[in-house]
Amino acid sequence: MSMMLTDWSGLNAAYATDGYARTTGGAGCFVTTHGVGELSALNGVAGSMTEQVKSIHVVGQTSRKMQQNRMMIHHSIGFSPDHQVFSHASKAFRCAAAELQSEDGATEEIDRVLRECFLKSRPVYIFLPIDLVDKHVPAEALKKPLDLEPVVDAKKVEEAATAVLEALYASKHPSIFVDCLVQRYQADTEIRELVDKLAIPIYTSNMGKGIVDENNPNYVGLYNGMPSGPGVEAAYLRSDLHIVVGNLPSDTNTGGFTRKSPAEKTVAIDADSVNVQGKTYTKAPIKAVLRQLLHKLLPEKVPKVELPKLPDRIQEDDHDSKLITQSWIWHRLANFLQPHDVVFGETGTAAFGIPDTAFPPHTQWITQTYYGSIGYATPAAFGVEMALTRNAAQGKPRGRTVLVTGDGSLMLTVQEVGNMVKQGCKPIIFVINNAGYTIERVIHGAKQSYNDIVPFDYRHMLPFFNMPAEEAERNFHRAGNKEELEGILGLEGVRCPTQVQVVEVMMEAMDVPWRLATQIATRGPEAVKEMEEAGFKVRQLQKVEG
Amino acid sequence: MSMMLTDWSGLNAAYATDGYARTTGGAGCFVTTHGVGELSALNGVAGSMTEQVKSIHVVGQTSRKMQQNRMMIHHSIGFSPDHQVFSHASKAFRCAAAELQSEDGATEEIDRVLRECFLKSRPVYIFLPIDLVDKHVPAEALKKPLDLEPVVDAKKVEEAATAVLEALYASKHPSIFVDCLVQRYQADTEIRELVDKLAIPIYTSNMGKGIVDENNPNYVGLYNGMPSGPGVEAAYLRSDLHIVVGNLPSDTNTGGFTRKSPAEKTVAIDADSVNVQGKTYTKAPIKAVLRQLLHKLLPEKVPKVELPKLPDRIQEDDHDSKLITQSWIWHRLANFLQPHDVVFGETGTAAFGIPDTAFPPHTQWITQTYYGSIGYATPAAFGVEMALTRNAAQGKPRGRTVLVTGDGSLMLTVQEVGNMVKQGCKPIIFVINNAGYTIERVIHGAKQSYNDIVPFDYRHMLPFFNMPAEEAERNFHRAGNKEELEGILGLEGVRCPTQVQVVEVMMEAMDVPWRLATQIATRGPEAVKEMEEAGFKVRQLQKVEG
Repeated sequence: MSMMLTDWSGLNAAYATDGYARTTGGAGCFVTTHGVGELSALNGVAGSMTEQVKSIHVVGQTSRKMQQNRMMIHHSIGFSPDHQVFSHASKAFRCAAAELQSEDGATEEIDRVLRECFLKSRPVYIFLPIDLVDKHVPAEALKKPLDLEPVVDAKKVEEAATAVLEALYASKHPSIFVDCLVQRYQADTEIRELVDKLAIPIYTSNMGKGIVDENNPNYVGLYNGMPSGPGVEAAYLRSDLHIVVGNLPSDTNTGGFTRKSPAEKTVAIDADSVNVQGKTYTKAPIKAVLRQLLHKLLPEKVPKVELPKLPDRIQEDDHDSKLITQSWIWHRLANFLQPHDVVFGETGTAAFGIPDTAFPPHTQWITQTYYGSIGYATPAAFGVEMALTRNAAQGKPRGRTVLVTGDGSLMLTVQEVGNMVKQGCKPIIFVINNAGYTIERVIHGAKQSYNDIVPFDYRHMLPFFNMPAEEAERNFHRAGNKEELEGILGLEGVRCPTQVQVVEVMMEAMDVPWRLATQIATRGPEAVKEMEEAGFKVRQLQKVEG
Repeated sequence: MSMMLTDWSGLNAAYATDGYARTTGGAGCFVTTHGVGELSALNGVAGSMTEQVKSIHVVGQTSRKMQQNRMMIHHSIGFSPDHQVFSHASKAFRCAAAELQSEDGATEEIDRVLRECFLKSRPVYIFLPIDLVDKHVPAEALKKPLDLEPVVDAKKVEEAATAVLEALYASKHPSIFVDCLVQRYQADTEIRELVDKLAIPIYTSNMGKGIVDENNPNYVGLYNGMPSGPGVEAAYLRSDLHIVVGNLPSDTNTGGFTRKSPAEKTVAIDADSVNVQGKTYTKAPIKAVLRQLLHKLLPEKVPKVELPKLPDRIQEDDHDSKLITQSWIWHRLANFLQPHDVVFGETGTAAFGIPDTAFPPHTQWITQTYYGSIGYATPAAFGVEMALTRNAAQGKPRGRTVLVTGDGSLMLTVQEVGNMVKQGCKPIIFVINNAGYTIERVIHGAKQSYNDIVPFDYRHMLPFFNMPAEEAERNFHRAGNKEELEGILGLEGVRCPTQVQVVEVMMEAMDVPWRLATQIATRGPEAVKEMEEAGFKVRQLQKVEG
């Protein structure tokens, strides 16, 4: 269920735990001291909260006596300190907490919050005063596995599923839209079976990419409102019924709220409830509903829908450039990927570029689309490497961790590469070196110095983290243009790595993925004007009436 | 008053601001985005809160409309998000906040919190929705300087000062004890004048070191309860009156609460009040009280006190070792220091070792003795470098930044060295390479793997941060033994640096400063047993009846 690893940075530990949890489908666990480590981790925990990832943060607190006497123990705040100020600070960023003050009932309380972690798919805390650590507690409860299944009202689930199927059978051009909460509530297997059985057009969100295999014959593409590929929005809106599963409608996951699903044409299967064309069915958890749909579905009653034909993708002006461009690299990356890879798009140009990368089957896509904390991806990739190693030990196929990050984001948590080297991890790390925060340049202040960064000489990164010189030399690669990147992507050591691989990818500071410029263009003509004046290329926005 | 610098890590920015503020005596200011940057910085702000440092955290929030409509904008938490959850989380870690929602009255509100920042010497927040950024506000208030003086009740101050002097004149063997809050409330000049006029024995705390010149003829030493040098506690307790100024009585600043000052023999001059042998005088701010004491003091009425003679310091068994030992290095460092240096002892062995280093006049000592967040010192040293550069521009003497950190602490915030390289800073960075968290080993689990770290090859650090090869070679130094360190400390480039200097100091993992082992020994015989079984040397605790 969980992992425990030494990582002295609270923030990096929280990020790594998040990555581990996403890849195992279970929970990750990390431990910090009170105050200093606890607060350092908070931003990472908040990310797990909003992205609905199962994280368990165990905090080693001062002794109960120190707390009662409000003693000025190091890491506390002020005179006569309340030692619980830190646990109060995390209240909005957890779904449950065991605030232990006695060994009596402690095991039940811990079990309760572990259960909440799984049911609500959000972080929990366990606060443990140091003088409780050595107390003995009954082991009785360990004899049976913790019940992690939600309470299901079978009748409600049946009602909801029946209503979904009635709407489906009555429609003429249904489609299904898959978003990330499907994965958070462990309904991946069910959704894959369901789309196979339904055989209707499949769309995904930015965050839902990869959950359904993209080589499914009914897969149309990624629908994100205005920042969608040519023809996608028009095709989606031709449906008279949208079955939207596991929706997480943040700005960045809806093309700045331009993704459409008219209520009267929508069936929404959410985490705990179902809404069929305006009518809500509660107490119907997503996984139970999908199972019931699989059970009751009569495929012959599902309308046959012709798959929409999309126009070719737009060929950008720079397609003949010898340099590595945003319009080229994400499509090129597709050929590098292998089934069972875990692919990270760090918040930045990668997060907006990789949606153009066609994924092979069983690819896991990880990006913090809603929370968007830069620096997340590198420690999270370390957590994923731990998870993949565990998977392999359990006989599951072990894919590769493909981390695509930027020079600005990597800087924030670069020490985690050291942990990867020490632990014998073997991710492939692509670092987009485009001289700073291109995603911020395109938003505002393209030439401002606050969008510049400290330039790193990545050739020294692996040696700095103590990889022997000869190995470090072999595992570092720098691509100044397309031809060089092609050569690197063909290397056996990069395709099937046995150690950390670092590929520095040189790109232009003012080159952005079309999805990113388009997303910003949804803010209005002033945003477009600022981008164009700074020299960014902005595509005409698609405007399709829903 | 403040500095503004680009630093994309929220935590590092908060630390750097803290360092800047300590060295200017004024406030530092930094800016983050809401949510992600805001929470990342929180641990740094909490450190400023508990160590009473003036820090201004400006948070760029979502627009008022987005807040009112609870829109799912990136960095928010969950469905229908409250955009203020982040500002609620920092409530315990600030003394005031301007939560701006309108341009009307905004300037007054900002002035109010800036004033609070100075008067309470603690962090404040300014929350600024993005749609307020371009609003015009009256410039009227800028015409006169902000009033940063506390409201002083002259009568109360006079009463307090009179009571202090009466107690002093009535005593036979008075002494004065100087702690860190003197510096936080800008009373450094007053305390220096006062100790000169008093000519009675002077003691300081761990945190108060350096505020009074240590070559003052009446300076006795650092009194920290049981973990004090030979004879110090006995000498201190021979006084019949302790004038304790600016006390911050945390565990780490009182030798685990073993520092003694019996109430009937104590005059406490605190931040806002004075207590004379049990009687409290409120509304008497420290700086005003010290000024009044200087004004009213009749030196001829102050008892003449013979300066205590302390025994020689204990010579450790390893004093002839050729290796660099904890018992040697801190005394050796004294000869390296110059007036006006700013010396950092990162939480770890350095914080417990440097108290043994005799400081030249006008040395500033920075350590997070109460909060103790490892990783603090490196970014804070960056902030200090900015402050020293500003000082120099104002014609003040520019000392050097001498950062003494450990391999474990440096790891957490190492990217800040990159910022130093980029900004042309010239600190001298001593990295104690003792293969992990020695301070944690001596507390618990000496041989546990969680006290190991990722080993860095520091030779590659400056090149990684893009310093040209030849310069990086010249500015990196590795001392494997005393002789090598002597050679390095004699180099002109190290003594008068023009670029970042890195000195890697090789030390034993199981070697600890005597003050650290003694501090832990105050916990009781079980702690001593655990240390001794692990192989640490523990001095006999001094026991002097007060």
